[in-house]
Amino acid sequence: MTTRVNKQQLLVSRPSGEPQLDNFRLVEVPLPELAPGQVLVRHHYLSLDPYMRGRMNEARGYADPQPLNQVMIGGTVGEVVASHNDRFAVGDTVVGMGGWQLFQVVDGAQAGMLRKVDSTRIPLSAYLGAVGMPGVTAWYGLTKIIAPRPGQTVVVSAASGAVGSIVGQLAKLRGARAVGIAGGPEKCRAVVEEFGFDHCIDYRVHADVKSLSAALKAACPEGIDGYFENVGGMILDAVMLRANTFARIALCGMIAGYNGTPIPLAAPQLILLNRMRIEGFIISDQMEVWPEALQELGTLLAAGRLRYRETIANGIESAPEAFIGLLKGRNFGKQLVKLI
Amino acid sequence: MTTRVNKQQLLVSRPSGEPQLDNFRLVEVPLPELAPGQVLVRHHYLSLDPYMRGRMNEARGYADPQPLNQVMIGGTVGEVVASHNDRFAVGDTVVGMGGWQLFQVVDGAQAGMLRKVDSTRIPLSAYLGAVGMPGVTAWYGLTKIIAPRPGQTVVVSAASGAVGSIVGQLAKLRGARAVGIAGGPEKCRAVVEEFGFDHCIDYRVHADVKSLSAALKAACPEGIDGYFENVGGMILDAVMLRANTFARIALCGMIAGYNGTPIPLAAPQLILLNRMRIEGFIISDQMEVWPEALQELGTLLAAGRLRYRETIANGIESAPEAFIGLLKGRNFGKQLVKLI
Repeated sequence: MTTRVNKQQLLVSRPSGEPQLDNFRLVEVPLPELAPGQVLVRHHYLSLDPYMRGRMNEARGYADPQPLNQVMIGGTVGEVVASHNDRFAVGDTVVGMGGWQLFQVVDGAQAGMLRKVDSTRIPLSAYLGAVGMPGVTAWYGLTKIIAPRPGQTVVVSAASGAVGSIVGQLAKLRGARAVGIAGGPEKCRAVVEEFGFDHCIDYRVHADVKSLSAALKAACPEGIDGYFENVGGMILDAVMLRANTFARIALCGMIAGYNGTPIPLAAPQLILLNRMRIEGFIISDQMEVWPEALQELGTLLAAGRLRYRETIANGIESAPEAFIGLLKGRNFGKQLVKLI
Repeated sequence: MTTRVNKQQLLVSRPSGEPQLDNFRLVEVPLPELAPGQVLVRHHYLSLDPYMRGRMNEARGYADPQPLNQVMIGGTVGEVVASHNDRFAVGDTVVGMGGWQLFQVVDGAQAGMLRKVDSTRIPLSAYLGAVGMPGVTAWYGLTKIIAPRPGQTVVVSAASGAVGSIVGQLAKLRGARAVGIAGGPEKCRAVVEEFGFDHCIDYRVHADVKSLSAALKAACPEGIDGYFENVGGMILDAVMLRANTFARIALCGMIAGYNGTPIPLAAPQLILLNRMRIEGFIISDQMEVWPEALQELGTLLAAGRLRYRETIANGIESAPEAFIGLLKGRNFGKQLVKLI
């Protein structure tokens, strides 16, 4: 193995509110010699995801906080470039949690964290999106929580995003109506034209709950049976006003609250009145569904029946800015950082 | 059949906020001759329940509004005093939805609404409480939504009430810890001493969410795994702050909101953070569980393993005042009106 330099993005201070560039620091470190059992992976893509904002807080969320002065966590795809482990050969393409860095050294004991994937039928980057954590998240919320019957109406916020776009497509494949909510005419057009939703509402033209609720009423004349929540806040309040009896809400993200802003729910009595079910989930709790979900998603994608978009930043240097943009909704579809 | 006079309480105007005595009017009407197939039931007890407040509003809730100038709806137990129907004999004891009146004439076509019950092993009034709608409500929320594992902690608001007291007892029978919330030292003492909860918190000595949350922390050192919600508002906020990962909230009542006061939920992001499930239900949607629930509740009650309290008002004249008192928490256990 040649001596190469690794570049890493460390979290060096905790943001209060929106993250800033100076919360991160880029460092260069030499790659160590591989010990027995170890594998060296060169990352092709890093995944940027909203959950990372929660990890930057000091308080324990649903996982331990990201430690300061360590490599930011993150999902990665890459290629094995050196291996002292029988289970991996040079050239294997692998998915893992390599973090915000160019290379990852994986211990033999941790080798279960790496999953070999086939990059011939499916582009490698898709394993961080439609056939990865976002895809399985969409699959779980739609299939296990919302479980729409044919003809029912499913609403999806952040509908042009990596998760939301898959939710709508899976809902359509199951015979449901899909109505998206997204920010701006360009995203809304893509939600309908590319991802095949029946309708998309631009939340930016609705200043308050009343206006958004009226738009939902027009787009969902038979009410809302399922809602996949990525955002929280005013959008959730508006959806609840249009929810049908026995509506299911899969609560997967509340970006509106990630920066610490309080986001009360205006009318919880509607949960009782309409006998709704609201279920929060994170997909890493549900490891048992991954094989079934990835099977369906991979088959659909390889057959050209599942569409996705990516926004790609270039180089590890660009990761902090791309992440800040992600939280502001500047990306379109899956936000990646290309590292090679 | 002798000509007798029926007394009825009609809803004559819709309350805004708390109901007032003049929303009701007592009328006397002659009992009609029985047509073929009809049954005449003389009511022994009328049940008063918080859900009735919702029905008094003009807006459609989870059921149609109570029509004005008609007999208030309500559950009843009584005795068949005349019958032109082969399925019922004079002397049969029956449960039904006879409304706020002394007698009920049941059509042959509606005879399915009447259920014959055995009043030898179980007191007739209990069919309106522990072995009736409140008991089945408790059973459903605890068994089907909260589903506590042995050793888990279940919190119950309105714990001295007809529903709450059963929830806690069923939780204990399933090996869980039960912590009640009730108003005042007398109720709290009964929740522990009579109903066998491990602990009871008097919400009246906690002025705000912070104080109540601290009391919950002390009473639930291992957090809260299940919550049976009868009240809403500040109590729900406080419970959510102490909820464990994967906590389940059965939302059965929100008395705090029945009079129209808005009751926002302060921190819905906790649903996601702790991957909670919140499920609203009303027991009339769940008719398929009644036989199993009533079987267990009846067996426990007949064996002396299920305790309950009743507050009994006397005479149909007293029903409005007793109902107003119920909404203010003046009752203790099941609120009934004795009609005989």
